[in-house]
Amino acid sequence: MAWGQAQAPALPPPASVSLDRLNYMNAYPPEGAQRIDRGNSYQYPQMRWTLQHLRELQPTHNIRRGAGPVSPLPADPRALGGVAFEDDKGQPITVDQWLERTYTDAIVVLHQGRVVFERYDNQMRPWTPHLLFSITKSFTGLMAAQLVHEGRIDDQALVVKYVPELAGSAWGDMKVRDVMDMTGAVRFREVYTDPTAEIFGYSWASGMLPRPPGYQGPATIYDFLKTLKKDGEHGEGFVYRTVHSEVLGWIVSRATGRHWAELMSENLWQKLGMEEDAHVMVDSVGTPLQGAGLNATARDLARVGEMLRLGGTYNGQKVFDRAVIEDTARGGDREKFRFQGLQAARPGYSYRNQWWVLHNADGAWEASGIHGQMLHINPKAEMVVVKLSSHPVASAAFTHALTLKAWAALAQAVRR
Amino acid sequence: MAWGQAQAPALPPPASVSLDRLNYMNAYPPEGAQRIDRGNSYQYPQMRWTLQHLRELQPTHNIRRGAGPVSPLPADPRALGGVAFEDDKGQPITVDQWLERTYTDAIVVLHQGRVVFERYDNQMRPWTPHLLFSITKSFTGLMAAQLVHEGRIDDQALVVKYVPELAGSAWGDMKVRDVMDMTGAVRFREVYTDPTAEIFGYSWASGMLPRPPGYQGPATIYDFLKTLKKDGEHGEGFVYRTVHSEVLGWIVSRATGRHWAELMSENLWQKLGMEEDAHVMVDSVGTPLQGAGLNATARDLARVGEMLRLGGTYNGQKVFDRAVIEDTARGGDREKFRFQGLQAARPGYSYRNQWWVLHNADGAWEASGIHGQMLHINPKAEMVVVKLSSHPVASAAFTHALTLKAWAALAQAVRR
Repeated sequence: MAWGQAQAPALPPPASVSLDRLNYMNAYPPEGAQRIDRGNSYQYPQMRWTLQHLRELQPTHNIRRGAGPVSPLPADPRALGGVAFEDDKGQPITVDQWLERTYTDAIVVLHQGRVVFERYDNQMRPWTPHLLFSITKSFTGLMAAQLVHEGRIDDQALVVKYVPELAGSAWGDMKVRDVMDMTGAVRFREVYTDPTAEIFGYSWASGMLPRPPGYQGPATIYDFLKTLKKDGEHGEGFVYRTVHSEVLGWIVSRATGRHWAELMSENLWQKLGMEEDAHVMVDSVGTPLQGAGLNATARDLARVGEMLRLGGTYNGQKVFDRAVIEDTARGGDREKFRFQGLQAARPGYSYRNQWWVLHNADGAWEASGIHGQMLHINPKAEMVVVKLSSHPVASAAFTHALTLKAWAALAQAVRR
Repeated sequence: MAWGQAQAPALPPPASVSLDRLNYMNAYPPEGAQRIDRGNSYQYPQMRWTLQHLRELQPTHNIRRGAGPVSPLPADPRALGGVAFEDDKGQPITVDQWLERTYTDAIVVLHQGRVVFERYDNQMRPWTPHLLFSITKSFTGLMAAQLVHEGRIDDQALVVKYVPELAGSAWGDMKVRDVMDMTGAVRFREVYTDPTAEIFGYSWASGMLPRPPGYQGPATIYDFLKTLKKDGEHGEGFVYRTVHSEVLGWIVSRATGRHWAELMSENLWQKLGMEEDAHVMVDSVGTPLQGAGLNATARDLARVGEMLRLGGTYNGQKVFDRAVIEDTARGGDREKFRFQGLQAARPGYSYRNQWWVLHNADGAWEASGIHGQMLHINPKAEMVVVKLSSHPVASAAFTHALTLKAWAALAQAVRR
């Protein structure tokens, strides 16, 4: 799940309120306004708690770090919180103020592999896994790109080569590449403010949201995917749709014969010397939400970013081939990216292998998820930023112009 | 959850079949007979998979091991698999045959703190958390006993001193001690073969089993407890009832102001140098199943056993005061234990602080859970045995006579 339409909400979001004041789930049992359950877990401000406690509400599959030593993440603290810059309205702001204004739970900034800035708020701790929403997609995308590189997936083949069950759906005549870059035409509206949008069908089928009374729809993610129809021409333009990531994960599982969470553990979490296990939300038959369900700590996500910045190798372990990283960071077709209109919030961007590419002078690229999840890689500045948030608005449209200003200010500051 | 009535089932259990042959949940998606979901997860043989994958079906609360080093568990392998003994029918059997006959997933035997025997089967691995069912109770019981020792809980006080919400229930005029030793009289039939038994109300309220269509009962464990009525006289005799453990956990949370899983992490998992995080099943508002929901690895459970054998200190950390361990291992009232009739399967036993005490010459005591979960401590033989299983029959009545023979054979073998 992620950006939805590019429009900003009509009203400003509610004021930031910390979990310290909200005092959720801190009584035995929690009663009344203190209680969070499946019925209110994605409402604001309850959502601020949920993003740090997802597994207490829904089934999850572990992503084990293994028994190896933790890889060092040396600290070289710098007072970046006071760095001043101009916000997107031309007003002065500091990094600390930006973090508060955007409901930040955690930020980790790496420069040349050292932690130069790290801050937690809203009860989050260095060891707390945080729901990453669509950052999940970017893992699925890199896995798929690596398999394409190895010749184990043909990105010019039809999806049905790997998933014949999708023959009657939008994916019936779609190529794998159009899934990877979200240029396949499928009717799937990802608009959180429209209750008729298909994103709700996805959320009910996957178990992300509780089902309405009398729900008779698909019981699993994959059964839901089969119901979606073509809408336009494949390859014409980029439209952001979470369901492509689920299809891509399905293709990865078929090509490898392995569960996504096991691939994540073996190829990433066990290799990178992570501090904590991660986990992924699963549907009622154990299918991972390969487009939205990953939970991990900010520090472990920073290790992923550093591995990517270094071209796929970290902690003495090769995770991805350099060619796969380069193909991704180089980006996709910027003209096709304009198709959906997301360039209003993300000017000049493209989308490749489920990553957002800025096409700026620093060669930056990033993964992101709703409610303010970001993994930003700036190769020229040798900088990685992880920012995890619980912003009341799902879409980044409200905040992304400011985010771009903050990226630039941080890149300038770490270079000093 | 645990023993139910002491009767053996009318028919022998189905033959043991390994997950290697069953091949559950090993396709994307799993279809037909390969599929396990909430509807069939506790049926046999699906249950063999479920006990190693619980969190993939239900919400859970993490029990974090922390960032400390793993405590050493030195290996000193001995060929105990071939140890021969007489089974409860007088027939010859070896340890390996006993393990197969009782659907064993894992066994770890410690002697003087060294791993002398360790075996995994049915796809279980040293790092796999296994559902421990009522071994959970024994953690809750020791926590409560420690708090009594520290004067933070008064075991002679009424339950309602800590949980006034239970005033109208069976616990309204019950003392804490009768909860700890399961001598409080409450109508709660724990008979898995009787669909009218209250154990099903517990299972539905807690979310352990999926609710039947149109379910209008309590939505949480604690709301369910409020509905249970007195049945007899408190203190008269021991009757095994899981709901006492849930009430005891509630008292512990009220006395400490802390969540059971956080207490488990801080006081046990972070102190003992565990290899893996553990986790506990939670209900729809995050309440842990303090009588049935713990999942942990066999090796970490062995560390708990060793800590207990050593009087409460392990890995340089005091977990429980020695007086608490001694009070527990000394056992309860053996006459009161006969009240329910469980002495048919467990001759001479008593129950104290949610532990089963054998009153044998070796001073042995144990925690146990349905479907064959055992943590057995033999102080005289300086032996700890963890045995995790997925036996098709919930009750131990079918197997416990054989288990006692195996304990004796192992104790004799490690002494050699």
